[in-house]
Amino acid sequence: MHPLIMGSLSWIEYQQRLQDEAIVFIPCGALEQHGPHLPLGTDALLSTSVAQSVAEKIDGIVAPTVSYGYKSQPKSGGGQHFPGTTSLDGNSLSQLIRDIVRELARQGGTKIAVVNGHYENQWFLTEGIDLAIRDVGSASTLRVMRLEYWEFLTPDILAKVFLEGFPGFALEHAAVIETSLMAHYHPNLVRLDLIPDVAAAEFPPYDLFPQCSDWVHVSGVLSSAKSASVEKGELMADHIAKGIATALKQEFPSLVSVPDMVLNQKA
Amino acid sequence: MHPLIMGSLSWIEYQQRLQDEAIVFIPCGALEQHGPHLPLGTDALLSTSVAQSVAEKIDGIVAPTVSYGYKSQPKSGGGQHFPGTTSLDGNSLSQLIRDIVRELARQGGTKIAVVNGHYENQWFLTEGIDLAIRDVGSASTLRVMRLEYWEFLTPDILAKVFLEGFPGFALEHAAVIETSLMAHYHPNLVRLDLIPDVAAAEFPPYDLFPQCSDWVHVSGVLSSAKSASVEKGELMADHIAKGIATALKQEFPSLVSVPDMVLNQKA
Amino acid sequence: MHPLIMGSLSWIEYQQRLQDEAIVFIPCGALEQHGPHLPLGTDALLSTSVAQSVAEKIDGIVAPTVSYGYKSQPKSGGGQHFPGTTSLDGNSLSQLIRDIVRELARQGGTKIAVVNGHYENQWFLTEGIDLAIRDVGSASTLRVMRLEYWEFLTPDILAKVFLEGFPGFALEHAAVIETSLMAHYHPNLVRLDLIPDVAAAEFPPYDLFPQCSDWVHVSGVLSSAKSASVEKGELMADHIAKGIATALKQEFPSLVSVPDMVLNQKA
Amino acid sequence: MHPLIMGSLSWIEYQQRLQDEAIVFIPCGALEQHGPHLPLGTDALLSTSVAQSVAEKIDGIVAPTVSYGYKSQPKSGGGQHFPGTTSLDGNSLSQLIRDIVRELARQGGTKIAVVNGHYENQWFLTEGIDLAIRDVGSASTLRVMRLEYWEFLTPDILAKVFLEGFPGFALEHAAVIETSLMAHYHPNLVRLDLIPDVAAAEFPPYDLFPQCSDWVHVSGVLSSAKSASVEKGELMADHIAKGIATALKQEFPSLVSVPDMVLNQKA
Amino acid sequence: MHPLIMGSLSWIEYQQRLQDEAIVFIPCGALEQHGPHLPLGTDALLSTSVAQSVAEKIDGIVAPTVSYGYKSQPKSGGGQHFPGTTSLDGNSLSQLIRDIVRELARQGGTKIAVVNGHYENQWFLTEGIDLAIRDVGSASTLRVMRLEYWEFLTPDILAKVFLEGFPGFALEHAAVIETSLMAHYHPNLVRLDLIPDVAAAEFPPYDLFPQCSDWVHVSGVLSSAKSASVEKGELMADHIAKGIATALKQEFPSLVSVPDMVLNQKA
Amino acid sequence: MHPLIMGSLSWIEYQQRLQDEAIVFIPCGALEQHGPHLPLGTDALLSTSVAQSVAEKIDGIVAPTVSYGYKSQPKSGGGQHFPGTTSLDGNSLSQLIRDIVRELARQGGTKIAVVNGHYENQWFLTEGIDLAIRDVGSASTLRVMRLEYWEFLTPDILAKVFLEGFPGFALEHAAVIETSLMAHYHPNLVRLDLIPDVAAAEFPPYDLFPQCSDWVHVSGVLSSAKSASVEKGELMADHIAKGIATALKQEFPSLVSVPDMVLNQKA
Repeated sequence: MHPLIMGSLSWIEYQQRLQDEAIVFIPCGALEQHGPHLPLGTDALLSTSVAQSVAEKIDGIVAPTVSYGYKSQPKSGGGQHFPGTTSLDGNSLSQLIRDIVRELARQGGTKIAVVNGHYENQWFLTEGIDLAIRDVGSASTLRVMRLEYWEFLTPDILAKVFLEGFPGFALEHAAVIETSLMAHYHPNLVRLDLIPDVAAAEFPPYDLFPQCSDWVHVSGVLSSAKSASVEKGELMADHIAKGIATALKQEFPSLVSVPDMVLNQKA
Repeated sequence: MHPLIMGSLSWIEYQQRLQDEAIVFIPCGALEQHGPHLPLGTDALLSTSVAQSVAEKIDGIVAPTVSYGYKSQPKSGGGQHFPGTTSLDGNSLSQLIRDIVRELARQGGTKIAVVNGHYENQWFLTEGIDLAIRDVGSASTLRVMRLEYWEFLTPDILAKVFLEGFPGFALEHAAVIETSLMAHYHPNLVRLDLIPDVAAAEFPPYDLFPQCSDWVHVSGVLSSAKSASVEKGELMADHIAKGIATALKQEFPSLVSVPDMVLNQKA
Repeated sequence: MHPLIMGSLSWIEYQQRLQDEAIVFIPCGALEQHGPHLPLGTDALLSTSVAQSVAEKIDGIVAPTVSYGYKSQPKSGGGQHFPGTTSLDGNSLSQLIRDIVRELARQGGTKIAVVNGHYENQWFLTEGIDLAIRDVGSASTLRVMRLEYWEFLTPDILAKVFLEGFPGFALEHAAVIETSLMAHYHPNLVRLDLIPDVAAAEFPPYDLFPQCSDWVHVSGVLSSAKSASVEKGELMADHIAKGIATALKQEFPSLVSVPDMVLNQKA
Repeated sequence: MHPLIMGSLSWIEYQQRLQDEAIVFIPCGALEQHGPHLPLGTDALLSTSVAQSVAEKIDGIVAPTVSYGYKSQPKSGGGQHFPGTTSLDGNSLSQLIRDIVRELARQGGTKIAVVNGHYENQWFLTEGIDLAIRDVGSASTLRVMRLEYWEFLTPDILAKVFLEGFPGFALEHAAVIETSLMAHYHPNLVRLDLIPDVAAAEFPPYDLFPQCSDWVHVSGVLSSAKSASVEKGELMADHIAKGIATALKQEFPSLVSVPDMVLNQKA
Repeated sequence: MHPLIMGSLSWIEYQQRLQDEAIVFIPCGALEQHGPHLPLGTDALLSTSVAQSVAEKIDGIVAPTVSYGYKSQPKSGGGQHFPGTTSLDGNSLSQLIRDIVRELARQGGTKIAVVNGHYENQWFLTEGIDLAIRDVGSASTLRVMRLEYWEFLTPDILAKVFLEGFPGFALEHAAVIETSLMAHYHPNLVRLDLIPDVAAAEFPPYDLFPQCSDWVHVSGVLSSAKSASVEKGELMADHIAKGIATALKQEFPSLVSVPDMVLNQKA
Repeated sequence: MHPLIMGSLSWIEYQQRLQDEAIVFIPCGALEQHGPHLPLGTDALLSTSVAQSVAEKIDGIVAPTVSYGYKSQPKSGGGQHFPGTTSLDGNSLSQLIRDIVRELARQGGTKIAVVNGHYENQWFLTEGIDLAIRDVGSASTLRVMRLEYWEFLTPDILAKVFLEGFPGFALEHAAVIETSLMAHYHPNLVRLDLIPDVAAAEFPPYDLFPQCSDWVHVSGVLSSAKSASVEKGELMADHIAKGIATALKQEFPSLVSVPDMVLNQKA
């Protein structure tokens, strides 16, 4: 029985964790093409793995992953035209998050972290959280952090990952960061041999609707993951988890660190 | 790389499966108390396991699980007052399913099976599917099966599981069927030693709102799972999977069985 | 002027009844095929008649009937393909009930009984009531009972109606129970001579979408009402009304019985 | 069995009427205070009676009445503060009408008349119909008339009803027109002895929110119905029914009049 | 920097005005054909101009205009078939107003006037305001006036404008009142030479859907604006602004008049 | 009469422009604090001015501005706590844009440019456009460009504006770009003397809900606009307008440039 996974706890165990004021993580991903070398579930897998890594450090709980996300856009995820990309309307996603947050608060939860792994989700998650905050009212002590995990990569780490200079997050769909993290967290779901060797995509400073499928390389990647490695994945994963844990302890002062020794014993 | 799990496939692998007219399963569960001996994620875990078992037999694909479900009712799930029971509004759930089904159809999918493991979900899933069918229009060849997996338990099997007579599905929340199936599929998530030894709940022929928490035993179970066993779980799981596979092959004639030999090789 | 019918009362008369803490019934039905021998309005007519019968016993008030219901399903109502079956989307029905319940509560009402006569309505009524309860807030003393009237048929009564054994409610669409009750309450709307003599329908343990019209006999009935009779209708109607009245007096202790003598005088 | 009432027809009878291209009426009312002398259901009762009167003349069908309406406004219905006034949100009403119209069209119906008896309903009915028209698409031959029945009162009739000059429809809530029509159609639901003898209300040329309950006489009427009479009711009812029938035959050319002789035989 | 225009104020200036309890105007219009002589934005331009005129008199603030309105109807605006008529669904408009009113109240605003210039908007604005009032709760002191500016035209003024007798507001779309007001407020946007010389439209006492484009003159006007003039516009504009200012000071007693001298200095 | 402003055109003039296949611009802004030196309407004013500048170059039409936008976020707009910041729920904004785009398409429009001036709007505009595209169906030739105008600032221009290096768009709320553009387009609405001299804000890599008002300087700006100037504004405005015009001509090939000579004559 995994003490971090909410779905693996009995309600009595969860009640105890709630009384201990454990923070609850809601990982959010998508079902979206990630090139020929990464699986459709990449964003959900990574947000879940990151959430679990952080939960281990601060004795948190990981709620079931929101595995479907907002519509893929050509400039950030390749677009909706790839088979397998299965997306939600914006309002559907917002209402889903609203319900989950409101329900966790109804049970007495006051500490929630929404860990987002799909860029296109951000604003609909924000809206869902905002509506839940409005629902519970100003008398509530509910506090919610929403984060995109890659934002915790600091320049020093990015410099180690991108030896020729970090070009920015814009084209990092199915590219070096995601591929390295997947190689670290889910090595059996990565096919390094299938990484496309393509030039970085160039996009105009606007969007067109209906989406233009010819803006994106037929492989679905926006830039090449050729320089990805499991070592880089480990480096980033470690840095991200520590960064998020630090942020959470700062914003939710009652949270305490789990000593490394205990963590090792669990593993 | 798991060939049955949609989230583990690359879009290119999924495209191939789509061209082979593979059926896509959408497991639907809930995050809901299941007594002291079963985890909150029981309904999601079981619908997922059942879907995977069937997918193995007919070369199907399992989409990410819908892990949150409709509000728990006292007479079928114990009610909303247990910590951990985290539920969606009806319309949120319907819109979620509507979007998923419509998106799978947009990509060219025409064979979908919604495998429900949470009784309270049934009607909101039905509505979501109906709305998706309306969206895609009458020219589409999309066909969707929705099923509650326990409905595939036939009297002969139930007679073997309930030696003193099958009392009906009404009180089977966190009881013999679910506990046995969990013992079969997820033995490490079951605490047989914590099964409450309680009399079967008795409910009036109506519902009250706000829900009456005193209608339900403090443990959250509606009847005792004492007679559950891993053997019964295996018996039922096998029967259910075969029954669903048979139904799907009948309703979606292009589906073919996977020879047992191949299945064994995969395992 | 009918003292039980809310729509027949002036607001001043209703205000008085409200001060007496009278319970308000909301009958819910459907406009749905019920074979060649019963009218499309059967579910609405029966829920209304049942509500009025109970209201007579405990001095209640019957609000206008919700005459349209959720979509007919093949296995419970024959399906949507019959001319005349005119159904609401799930959310439309839920919002309708939500508004009615919230409005009755706004006026000071705290005792409401939703009497459902259409199986497919149940969950959308539940959701509508739940949303209204949330709207009025936890400080309210509003209490709502939702019931399907047939659930008040006890085994002893069913044994008298089904001489060859009660097969369960599943196929009781336009069958013995509804036809007998209509013969009792609305004899001029029943055509006993047109009752189809068909074998009980057999359904698979799943649903398909789009609905399969060939699952259902062309007449629209799921089993034969040949053994229906006005006497059985009276027996059941009397039992149901008493059962519901008893339940309401138990759950809403301030309600008092109307002496039979008074009832006779009114009639 | 009433051949005009859709809820009284079997689906087979309705199917026949549909093939005859009968028009379907949807009466729309409200549950709203109408002074001490008229019942809460006045608007629903009158729209239903009018619809039935017209249906008799042109062999139409009357669908179940929409008995709940949009929120009462002080200047047209007295406002929401009277006990018994039980109203819907605007969108709830629009969605309800949208569903009903779309469903009737799905079955093959192409001729629908929405007969409104509650002033505040008008625009939400219009929106519901418009959305249904959009849903069925431009290829459909569906045509819907929406009418407020009082708009068919011509100056000559109004001159006979208002001997001192017709002051306009604005204050005709629970006043001469409605009271006379109720006295004609539902004499047992009118208490002529309780008609308030009040001066006509005077309203400012704007609305305030929250509504001002002191804008309206405590009785709930906007002007006195003292001059109402059953004779005036009959005069108006006859004129309205003929006017609507004429309009419908003009706009739906396939409709035919029912000879008076036949109407008399039915009665 | 225009002290009346909210969009022209910095937040600090607005904060000061809020502390002074200034009333906030929300002008509401439409983008709708107004014949060959008036622009599509007429309703938005006039509601804005009226709001500014009143704001000048009582030191109010004019929020950004809601420039899109509800669907044009043949009998009041010519209908949806004219190019340029760009309309909102009813619920979209209601939600828009709900949000704006709720937000102004959230900041501490308690005095709001919704100035409507598009007849078809009225009920969806009413609903939006009502929902906002419900949102802010009964403890709030928020008060909202909704008005159609033409309702402030009194018989004496109308007698001066319509020398041959005022025929009522029904056909005043793109006719004498609007054209005169535009000639006063926006002379450069009126083409008096293009005013159609058409007879007043005659409409049946009902509506049809889909809308009948042949009910309306091809020019889009419902009656001729030939007798419009800038003088009449000035007369009406002055009367309307004074009437609204008087009404507001009466309903929001804390508001004070701005001395004419100050107004002249500003101009 | 301004030939570029849709609200200033008669429907006949607009019809002509539609037949000429003119592109329609929808400027989108917000009502949001912009420090002590810029007005609340800055985003709406700038998106409108940019749209008009581009429309002049390619003979386009500017529809009425959407003046209210999505909720201000601390890290991009300072947050919701400033008086005057008046925001829409996400779904309200999406539905508003959906309706406008669908209506323009219904009239025959096929070329639309949504010019966004409020960062927080982007995703809800995207969703609204996507839903409209779905509504009009795949047979339509409707094409919509959505753009944030500042994305057309190229590195060479930014280098001239930010002499000490461009720090990125993140903190450009009420800062150098917006202030300079306002000084160019709306000099009378800018108070250069009130520009706060504050250090650039530093934000953590996450968001918190409820929003943290103490993350933002009390003035509301995220970085100082001290180096703003009208010259920089003109430089950027010119560059942006040219860039957008070029992009539109490329994506909508039928569009033609208006010769400068003609533009000068108009001015």
